[in-house]
Amino acid sequence: MPLGRKHPADLLMTAVDAAGAPVCVGLDPVVERLPTEVRVGADSISLARFSLGIIDAVRGIVPCIKIQAACFERYGPDGFKALEEVMAAAKSAGLITILDAKRGDIGISAEHYAAALFGHFSADWCTANAYLGMDGVTPFLARGGVFALVRTSNPASDALQSLQLRDGRSVAEAVASLVAATGADSIGSSGFSNLGAVVGATKAQDATSLRAVMPQQLFLVPGYGAQGGTADDVRPCFRADGKGAIITASRSVIYPTSKAGEHWKSAVERAARSFAAEIRAVVFPAPAHP
Amino acid sequence: MPLGRKHPADLLMTAVDAAGAPVCVGLDPVVERLPTEVRVGADSISLARFSLGIIDAVRGIVPCIKIQAACFERYGPDGFKALEEVMAAAKSAGLITILDAKRGDIGISAEHYAAALFGHFSADWCTANAYLGMDGVTPFLARGGVFALVRTSNPASDALQSLQLRDGRSVAEAVASLVAATGADSIGSSGFSNLGAVVGATKAQDATSLRAVMPQQLFLVPGYGAQGGTADDVRPCFRADGKGAIITASRSVIYPTSKAGEHWKSAVERAARSFAAEIRAVVFPAPAHP
Repeated sequence: MPLGRKHPADLLMTAVDAAGAPVCVGLDPVVERLPTEVRVGADSISLARFSLGIIDAVRGIVPCIKIQAACFERYGPDGFKALEEVMAAAKSAGLITILDAKRGDIGISAEHYAAALFGHFSADWCTANAYLGMDGVTPFLARGGVFALVRTSNPASDALQSLQLRDGRSVAEAVASLVAATGADSIGSSGFSNLGAVVGATKAQDATSLRAVMPQQLFLVPGYGAQGGTADDVRPCFRADGKGAIITASRSVIYPTSKAGEHWKSAVERAARSFAAEIRAVVFPAPAHP
Repeated sequence: MPLGRKHPADLLMTAVDAAGAPVCVGLDPVVERLPTEVRVGADSISLARFSLGIIDAVRGIVPCIKIQAACFERYGPDGFKALEEVMAAAKSAGLITILDAKRGDIGISAEHYAAALFGHFSADWCTANAYLGMDGVTPFLARGGVFALVRTSNPASDALQSLQLRDGRSVAEAVASLVAATGADSIGSSGFSNLGAVVGATKAQDATSLRAVMPQQLFLVPGYGAQGGTADDVRPCFRADGKGAIITASRSVIYPTSKAGEHWKSAVERAARSFAAEIRAVVFPAPAHP
């Protein structure tokens, strides 16, 4: 990381403490699902308008926002302009930004991607694919926080990530070991590394072993809510001290069912509060009554 | 693939036959290495100017061009505009385009990326990362040709891709099996699938077994030349009939040493001809003298 830059994991943990809930809103807008009121003009402009509304609705409730690069990229240069605007707005709103770009390349190409994500778009964190090996991850880590894909929430991931190695580990556990080793060089005062891991909420059966392999990794946990992950599913993603995971919900927060007469942004705010409360109850369970 | 669209693998094989050499020029320009004459104005404009010169120099010599998305993406929207211009120019020059974007995501996010690469940028082929599983690849395959990363040329790839599974295969061989199975649905009259594989030239020791697992996959083989891969290294990427691999060279062709007084584009053209001849000699070795 450049000298003078704050430590991404420490910053994220501070923001989580301030918000009182380790949650993240996933912003992956598609034009067809946007409220009519924002669907005016070019599609990329509608995306930006909707995204600014989401940022405004969830600021102060959640510590961070995960922005799906693909949604914007599909519109080419105009989409990238919209993404610039959205990233800047999230930062202004005090949200930690996770640019969900799942990039992965090696050498100078990885440096180019890192320059795009952390330089051009000013992301605090990005997601990255580690299949190429850790030299595909370190160029990103040199510039900001990185969540490496370890165990993804989609059904077909099992056919590769769950394969058993000769030493008894799964492929995902092997990636987890590489992530833990590479991340050991960037552990901050929070006790967490700038190299974290994506671990899907739908893979609860694997979270316990992955947590054991990666005690100092922050887990970014997608798949909560609409994809089927429950509060019970995400519990093993946290350490015993209740720290270390950031639970992400997307569709259930950004496309909530509005009450009669309720503005769409109010419905989003309500959904974000409800989501934060659900996760808070996982991390800080109410004491049992005597 | 949309109805009426030509079969990407068949088109690529036809172009290879027409050029007489299964080669590809890798276009991954960085501003610092560009000839002074094109370095005028904004960096993204210099990149585009250089790229158009490369396209002009190699057209008619090589059948296809692999364009590194990261080089352009680092400049944000302006970089994407330059990429649009370069992709359009490559198509106009009759080159098959491989947009080396190494994207990988699932569901609708993968569809967004596919819309960007094949729709917005009109690529014929892209590269994709299969770590998420084959549901991260099929949305790309629905719109064009895909080279999935199987065995990459970088040193650190061994720590994951070479791990041994309990059934004796390597992780890369397991990915190869998934690629072969998924690609079986899109085999054209050339005998090759629209789902191909990236297999690095520096991993010659693995190419034989990967070729056995993937007889109907086209191999995109980077790492020739500057990265250390030799003619001997790439031989096992071809099938016994001399077909099935596309060898890529980048730095050795786009940054050649010019002779005294030679224009940089002439040096590129000379380097491309020499590269094509080297690979032609691998595929069509001169008959031994009696």
